Amino acid sequence: MIEDTETGSTKTPRTGRRPGTSSTRQEILEAARKLFAERGYQGATIRAIAAEAGVDAALVVHFFGNKATLLAQAVEWPFDPEIEMPKLLAEGKHHVGRRLVALVVRTWDEEGTRNPVLTLLRAATTEPQAAEMMGAFLRTRLFAPLMERLGSDRPDLRTTLAASQLVGMGLARHVLRVEPLASAKPADVVDWYGPTLQRYLTGKLERA
Amino acid sequence: MIEDTETGSTKTPRTGRRPGTSSTRQEILEAARKLFAERGYQGATIRAIAAEAGVDAALVVHFFGNKATLLAQAVEWPFDPEIEMPKLLAEGKHHVGRRLVALVVRTWDEEGTRNPVLTLLRAATTEPQAAEMMGAFLRTRLFAPLMERLGSDRPDLRTTLAASQLVGMGLARHVLRVEPLASAKPADVVDWYGPTLQRYLTGKLERA
Repeated sequence: MIEDTETGSTKTPRTGRRPGTSSTRQEILEAARKLFAERGYQGATIRAIAAEAGVDAALVVHFFGNKATLLAQAVEWPFDPEIEMPKLLAEGKHHVGRRLVALVVRTWDEEGTRNPVLTLLRAATTEPQAAEMMGAFLRTRLFAPLMERLGSDRPDLRTTLAASQLVGMGLARHVLRVEPLASAKPADVVDWYGPTLQRYLTGKLERA
Repeated sequence: MIEDTETGSTKTPRTGRRPGTSSTRQEILEAARKLFAERGYQGATIRAIAAEAGVDAALVVHFFGNKATLLAQAVEWPFDPEIEMPKLLAEGKHHVGRRLVALVVRTWDEEGTRNPVLTLLRAATTEPQAAEMMGAFLRTRLFAPLMERLGSDRPDLRTTLAASQLVGMGLARHVLRVEPLASAKPADVVDWYGPTLQRYLTGKLERA
């Protein structure tokens, strides 16, 4: 589990940072992760997150501006794209659909309902700012490097189509827990959704 | 526009109902629709809905129990399954995917962000009870009659897969408004999603 997304920047060195500010920032992020997971986006107030971190609410606002930004920065991407991306393409471009579904299902099955990406998704359905951040996050961290490697035409469209199915799958399996999808084996889920993702990422999108 | 879902029961005759109770119930449902559309699920309180309808909040609770039930009953299915179902199958089973996408896109394009089904969807991501009701609603009103006509195996699984894509599409196009999907022509959206829905509803789901 790589945590380099937590600061929103990979340029910040992990060592040698100024101790005061950075550790307070870290404590706020950890408190935010805990409360977002426990209470959801609506339930976790800035005030409660500040109390959990042992700081003043004004300091949270000073560091992060608002709750949507705080959530976006608190989300830890649960796998490292640098490590996973070559694996997605290990069997060639024509298996990327199944590989991507398998990666997402494995990740979300492990994380369960505490998954911060799902917390962000829930927030995104009611908060436009959270929606924008989730979109940017998915594009930048997952799909941009993937589409670059695939070299398909219209990467923005393909990204949107693929994300719309993965998000719908995540909602049905992990948030709404609709059966028989919620209890299905990962291998079956890969069979069902793999061809859809494959077509969206590399296939023909329009009718002949 | 058929409104027979608003009472949650098609057994209630449209005429000859007891005037006092039924019209108050109708007024509450209309107030709920208005405020859910304007303020969203979180923002529309029972108290505000009662005030809008000119009744006491206790009466709203008496009729509907809680906000999730009220929302589910306030949702008007924006097309009549009895009328649309034969059209979905007018070109035969092998065109049902494209026809279904076209119907959903047309409906949601017309309704826009005030679409009560989208309000229910937003609520469903945070409220388990709203989620359960949305699931029951989609299954009963749309997919059960459709799957019966198609005669495919594993109707529950196919329903879940199809719903997961339509919901993901609705989120991306209508709630999160992700481009280039949000501004795309309906005919293009049908091209992109039609084959996915077709496979989920009638195609082979597992690898050979």
